[in-house]
Amino acid sequence: MAGKNEIGGRKRKMSILIKNVSILFFDSEEELSFSEGDVFVKGDIIESVGKKLDVEADVVIDGRDKVALPGFVNAHTHAAMALFRGYADDLPLDIWLNEKIWPVEAKLTPEDVYWGVKLALLEMIKGGITAYGDMYFFMDEEAEAVTEAGIRASLSVGLIAVAGDPSQKLREAEHFVSRWNGEAEGRITAMFGPHAPYTCPPGFLKEVVSAAKQYGVGIHTHLAETKKEVEDIYKLYGKSPVEVYEEAGVLDLHVLAAHCVHMTSRDMEILKNHGVFVVHNPQSNLKLGSGIAPVPEMLKKGIPVALGTDGAASNNNLDIFEEMRTAALLHKGVNLNPTLVTASEALKMATIWGAEALGLKNVGKIEPGKKADIVLLDFNSPHLQPKIDHVAHIVYSAGSADVDTVIVDGKIIMKNGKVLTLDEEKIYQEVQKRTQRLISN
Amino acid sequence: MAGKNEIGGRKRKMSILIKNVSILFFDSEEELSFSEGDVFVKGDIIESVGKKLDVEADVVIDGRDKVALPGFVNAHTHAAMALFRGYADDLPLDIWLNEKIWPVEAKLTPEDVYWGVKLALLEMIKGGITAYGDMYFFMDEEAEAVTEAGIRASLSVGLIAVAGDPSQKLREAEHFVSRWNGEAEGRITAMFGPHAPYTCPPGFLKEVVSAAKQYGVGIHTHLAETKKEVEDIYKLYGKSPVEVYEEAGVLDLHVLAAHCVHMTSRDMEILKNHGVFVVHNPQSNLKLGSGIAPVPEMLKKGIPVALGTDGAASNNNLDIFEEMRTAALLHKGVNLNPTLVTASEALKMATIWGAEALGLKNVGKIEPGKKADIVLLDFNSPHLQPKIDHVAHIVYSAGSADVDTVIVDGKIIMKNGKVLTLDEEKIYQEVQKRTQRLISN
Repeated sequence: MAGKNEIGGRKRKMSILIKNVSILFFDSEEELSFSEGDVFVKGDIIESVGKKLDVEADVVIDGRDKVALPGFVNAHTHAAMALFRGYADDLPLDIWLNEKIWPVEAKLTPEDVYWGVKLALLEMIKGGITAYGDMYFFMDEEAEAVTEAGIRASLSVGLIAVAGDPSQKLREAEHFVSRWNGEAEGRITAMFGPHAPYTCPPGFLKEVVSAAKQYGVGIHTHLAETKKEVEDIYKLYGKSPVEVYEEAGVLDLHVLAAHCVHMTSRDMEILKNHGVFVVHNPQSNLKLGSGIAPVPEMLKKGIPVALGTDGAASNNNLDIFEEMRTAALLHKGVNLNPTLVTASEALKMATIWGAEALGLKNVGKIEPGKKADIVLLDFNSPHLQPKIDHVAHIVYSAGSADVDTVIVDGKIIMKNGKVLTLDEEKIYQEVQKRTQRLISN
Repeated sequence: MAGKNEIGGRKRKMSILIKNVSILFFDSEEELSFSEGDVFVKGDIIESVGKKLDVEADVVIDGRDKVALPGFVNAHTHAAMALFRGYADDLPLDIWLNEKIWPVEAKLTPEDVYWGVKLALLEMIKGGITAYGDMYFFMDEEAEAVTEAGIRASLSVGLIAVAGDPSQKLREAEHFVSRWNGEAEGRITAMFGPHAPYTCPPGFLKEVVSAAKQYGVGIHTHLAETKKEVEDIYKLYGKSPVEVYEEAGVLDLHVLAAHCVHMTSRDMEILKNHGVFVVHNPQSNLKLGSGIAPVPEMLKKGIPVALGTDGAASNNNLDIFEEMRTAALLHKGVNLNPTLVTASEALKMATIWGAEALGLKNVGKIEPGKKADIVLLDFNSPHLQPKIDHVAHIVYSAGSADVDTVIVDGKIIMKNGKVLTLDEEKIYQEVQKRTQRLISN
């Protein structure tokens, strides 16, 4: 492979031609449409898109019966928690956290995180996710796994200031940002990850803001996830979590705020005014009994909303199709209004708006000049027939198993449903062994 | 094949042995568990279940890495509406019905229904559904498709008394019941299908009840689906839809009542007292903006709740895994209580309680003497690792694509994901052609 890629010592740019595929176009922010054509990828960039392109490529993919989409973005997860899938379900939140999740997290080793992340990456790549946002610990190991898997990621060291030495943790986070931001040929970007308003007091938040400004990176955080959080923060500070963040200067940065379930109108105005990116995690919010985020109101106000799966201990899979579908269905039912959160909106939440939430300016559309993060869906299945409306089929009918090919940064990392960069059997064995150790008493 | 099955002119019973598979057991109505063993099927019946069975079989299936479940039951759908998948989404209910669905339904031919049903059966079998309940029109064609496909079905001619000649329709429904109930080697059963309280006045309902008693069959109906229905019925009769049905004697029969979204406590008491089987269709209720059925309250009262997909024009797929998952997630989130509708309850809703709702007394468990309706899931996928809790994985992580093998009435109708009884390509072609004709002006 090295020989093929290098000519006279210089790296030659590999090229891919996807022929006769139905391509998703963003005609405007309002309208999505599909048109058949070819996509030509050179190196990490989409070079051209059009009808019957007259080009030669190293790899030619037959796109018939397939649909080409910009890769999906899972804007909020904790990948390593795939280790705890199915370990604690249907429990009250305090028992879930105190008696189940925190005790097993306390036992995690860096190698456990490495293998847990690999399981999550395998699942996400199989489901067409080409970029994701994560906040957890042992992030060096996560970054190594991302480098190997070939996926794109925005990674943050989770910061909790109410235990241990907060300054030491912040220094570790700074070290992570300086080591990994821009690595893996630019596929890894970094943010600072203050965990939540109830674990990061305003003084600490200000230190994080200062560090983020210094490194020129954004903030990934949890915000207004549960009713109890909001009540506790009001008791402590006499204001809402969103207001606490605003006062501490957090919202002056690029902010990716996960959940935003319990908010006032004024909170939403603040998010809008500061250009905060909200990540809606509908299945996690339902499963943990957190509630239902006011997504239709946020969309109406023009707040950019992305989608996330959250971790596999509260979902329990990392399937962005399900989040799209749940987002598109849930708000219609809760508000008795079948016109809310359209299929087009849900698809944008899972692609272009997700890319924007991660701060990826050159990702999220199939257009010349954009990064080549492309997913091919196989439409040759009964649940995707008859072929009438591709957008509706993708949001309301399709699933992860319909993903056939995944290209990230111009490299094919999955073909015919087989992930080329990860060893499935080895991952299953390692994860099974490690989870059994973690959950044993 | 005929030669193999017949010995001396008598049909020999084919046998299947599934070896070393993880089997779902219903230890009691409260507890589900898995245990590894073998399942031996002879003819249409599960002959024995246990460790290392010492039997010989015509077909031996290696069950390693697989999970054996009783087949899933989709207790309420309109299969032929698969023709309209993706045709009308995100619209107000009156426009969806008046301008989209009813006009295309008016153009349907018996052959359209036959092919639409075949598409639905292909999708349902691929998703592990071994029995389903349907109410629609041109039901002779649906029964033919069911006979060919090898699935089990409870079929009802939909009866609307506010247009046309109600008595003529009832005679047609009687004809359907007398022709098809017990056909296809017993796989087809029939019910009467009065559409809903707002389309069937009490006088007509009484006629239907009388016919159902005469033929000894049950009732499949829609009930209390929308707020508007309840308001309209109150205006007309001064009582709730459930009370109208009770007074007309409907609830004295075996009743499968789809939706039951808008109900009072008293309505639920009536359903409980009459042993009515409720079919929860969470995704359809969300998508059409109908609302959220009070499932936790119904379960608490002891009302048996099954699951349905409803038709593909309001869902848009026929995936019972998604209905299980939505049922298990939705009520937790809406009620801010993560202990409501457990994974075990959702799995029972999709199997044994579904079978009971269809009146199938000998279906829904893997036990000696029961009908051999069995589904094998392949657990060799990242979203089903690590292997900790099969029930949680099936409800919160699995999907239709994990179904590997489907056995109905002792016959293998899907193997390694390939449906053996239906011609996929032919179905796709017919459906595409017919839908294009139906939706053209």
